[in-house]
Amino acid sequence: MFRLALDAMGGDYAPLQIVRGGLQALKEFPNLFVYFVGRKEEVLPLLGKEAEPYRDRFEVVDAPDVVGMQEAPSRVLKKKNSSLFVAAKLVREGAADALVSAGNTGAVLTVGKFVIGAIEELERPSIGVAFPNPRGKTVLLDVGANVDVKPRHLVQFAVIGHTYAEEILGIKNPRVGILSIGEEEGKGNELVKETYPLLKETKLNFLGNAEGRDIFAGTFDVIVCDGFVGNVVLKASEALGFAVINMIKEEVKKSFWAKVGAFFMRKAFRALKQKADFAEYGGIPLLGAKAPVIITHGRANAKAIRNAVRAAMEFYDHHFNEVLKNNLKNLAGEVLAKTRAGNSNNS
Amino acid sequence: MFRLALDAMGGDYAPLQIVRGGLQALKEFPNLFVYFVGRKEEVLPLLGKEAEPYRDRFEVVDAPDVVGMQEAPSRVLKKKNSSLFVAAKLVREGAADALVSAGNTGAVLTVGKFVIGAIEELERPSIGVAFPNPRGKTVLLDVGANVDVKPRHLVQFAVIGHTYAEEILGIKNPRVGILSIGEEEGKGNELVKETYPLLKETKLNFLGNAEGRDIFAGTFDVIVCDGFVGNVVLKASEALGFAVINMIKEEVKKSFWAKVGAFFMRKAFRALKQKADFAEYGGIPLLGAKAPVIITHGRANAKAIRNAVRAAMEFYDHHFNEVLKNNLKNLAGEVLAKTRAGNSNNS
Repeated sequence: MFRLALDAMGGDYAPLQIVRGGLQALKEFPNLFVYFVGRKEEVLPLLGKEAEPYRDRFEVVDAPDVVGMQEAPSRVLKKKNSSLFVAAKLVREGAADALVSAGNTGAVLTVGKFVIGAIEELERPSIGVAFPNPRGKTVLLDVGANVDVKPRHLVQFAVIGHTYAEEILGIKNPRVGILSIGEEEGKGNELVKETYPLLKETKLNFLGNAEGRDIFAGTFDVIVCDGFVGNVVLKASEALGFAVINMIKEEVKKSFWAKVGAFFMRKAFRALKQKADFAEYGGIPLLGAKAPVIITHGRANAKAIRNAVRAAMEFYDHHFNEVLKNNLKNLAGEVLAKTRAGNSNNS
Repeated sequence: MFRLALDAMGGDYAPLQIVRGGLQALKEFPNLFVYFVGRKEEVLPLLGKEAEPYRDRFEVVDAPDVVGMQEAPSRVLKKKNSSLFVAAKLVREGAADALVSAGNTGAVLTVGKFVIGAIEELERPSIGVAFPNPRGKTVLLDVGANVDVKPRHLVQFAVIGHTYAEEILGIKNPRVGILSIGEEEGKGNELVKETYPLLKETKLNFLGNAEGRDIFAGTFDVIVCDGFVGNVVLKASEALGFAVINMIKEEVKKSFWAKVGAFFMRKAFRALKQKADFAEYGGIPLLGAKAPVIITHGRANAKAIRNAVRAAMEFYDHHFNEVLKNNLKNLAGEVLAKTRAGNSNNS
C-alpha cells in the first residue's frame, strides 16, 4: 500500500478540485491510500457518497489552518496546524510515503526542505523540470530550491538529474551537461569553471557545457545550473510559451482568413498549449527529499492532482531514493568526498 | 556625414549580402559614408556599376584576413589584418563613427571591448536585447558581454538600459527592474541582494525585482542581470521561440484540416517568426562603447545589414554617448562614486 499525504487546502481551486483529484486517484489505483489533510468540515462533504466504496483506503486528517497562496513561504513553519505542515509531518513521521500539494510553491519547498528534509547523502534537495524537446525531455535542475550554490552541489544535482532521467523518464545513460555560455571547456562564470572538472571526474555521461538553446534542442538529457539561473529560465520560458500563443491569437484576430485557419488548427493549438505548460503533467518533483514531494501548479484541477499522485507513486515504485543513494556513491562518491562541506578548498 | 565601418567579410553570407546591404543603405541615406572593409578583389566586383552613383560616399579598405565564424573570439586581436580588426581600428582612430558586423559575435564583442573600448565613465560596455512584449519592448542587459559582475556594474547597466530605452525606444522615464526570483526585496542571490539597495538610491525609476516572466510581460522597460544569466535567457528564449513554431508545424502535419488552417494563417506565422527572432531587427548593440557597435546575426542578409546601419545611425543621431554620460552622472553619480572599483566594500 502506497500512503499519500494530500494537502487538500492548497491551490487556487482547493479544496474542491484537490479532493476530486484524490478521489479519482483512489478509483484508479487500488494500492493507494490517501490522507486528505485539511478542514474536516469542508473536506468530508466533498468526498460524500462517491468515496464510500473506498472507505478503507482514505482518512481525513483535520488541519484548521491554511497557508495562503501569497503568504511568505517561511510562514508555513510557524503555521503548524496548516494543512501543508500537517501533511508534511505525516510524511516525516512515517505515516505517509509521499506528499502532494498544489499550494504556495515556496511554502511546499520550505516544508520539503525543513520538515521532510533531504536524504543524508545530500545537503539539499533540488527541483527539476522536464522541458519538452523534439525527441523527448530534458531535465533542468535546480530551478529554484537552491539559489547560491557551490560546485559540489551542482555535482549532486547532476547525479539527482541522472537518476531522475534514468528511473522516471526511462533514458538510459543520460547525457549530462552544465548550463553555461559558450560550448568549450573554460567558458562560463566562476561557478561553471570550478564545477566542470569535477563533473568530468565523475562516472556520469558528462558531455560538457550546454547553452541556453540546448534546453529545448534534445542535445542533452540532464542540464544542471544554480537555482537562480534555473528559476529565471523556467519562468521566462513559461511566459514566452504563453506569449507566443497569445501573439498567434492577436495575429489571428487581424484577418478573417486567419480566423478560419485557426478554427481548423484548434486541436493543434490545444496540444501546443499543453506542451508549453511545462509543469502541467504530474507537477514538479522535489528531488532528493527523504520522501517524494510533488509540487503542482497552483491552478491544478482534479486531473492535475491525479497526475501528481501518479507521479509520486512512480518515485515510490522505482525506489527512487535507494537508487539515488547508490548513484551518489557509485557515480560521484570520490568527487563528493573530496569536496565535502568544510574542506579547505570549499568547493 | 555619418561614416560607417562595415565588416564586409563577417557573416554566413559575406561578402555578397553584406556589400548589398551597405549599398542599399547608401541609396537610402544620403548622409551616409561607408567603409567597406574586406578583401578588395572580392568586394569591388560586388559593388560594380550599381555603386557608381555613390562613388564619393564609399571607400573599399583592403583587409586580406578573415575571422572565421567558429574561431576563438580572442584570436581576432592577433589577426590585425582581418576585416573586423581593421574596421574596428578605423573607428578607434576616428576615421569612422560606428561599426557594423555580422561576424563571429564573440570576436565583434572582443574588438568592441578592447579595440574600441568603453567610454571613460564606464568600466564595461554591455549588450542589450529588446524583447517583444504585448505593449512594446523590454530591454534585457547584459546578455553576454560581462559574465561575473559586481553590484556597481549592474547599476551601470541600469543607466545604460535607461538611456537606450529613452533615446532609442522612445520610452519616457523607463521602469527599471533587476532580474531575480521572487518579487519582494530580499529575494534573490547575493548579487541581487547587494545591488537592490544601490539601485534604490539612484534617481532611476526603479521598481524592484523582476522575475523571468516579466521579460515578456510588459511590466518593466529595462531589466538588468549579469551576462551569464542574460545570455542563457536570450539563447533559451530564441530556441524556445523557434521550437514552438516547429511544434506547430509538426502538429499541423498530423491533420489535413490543420494544414488547411495553417495555409490561411501563413501571414500570421510569418509575423510571429519575425517577432521570435529577437536580434532580427537592427542587430544587437554593444552599449557604452566609445562609438556605436552593432552586432547582427551571423545569418544576416542585405536587409538585416541595412537595418543595422540604420540602427547605428540612430545612436549617432541621438548623441547616445553624450546622453549616457550625463545620465551616469545625474542619475547614479553618487552611488557609482561610492562603489567605485577598489573601494573597501568592493561593491
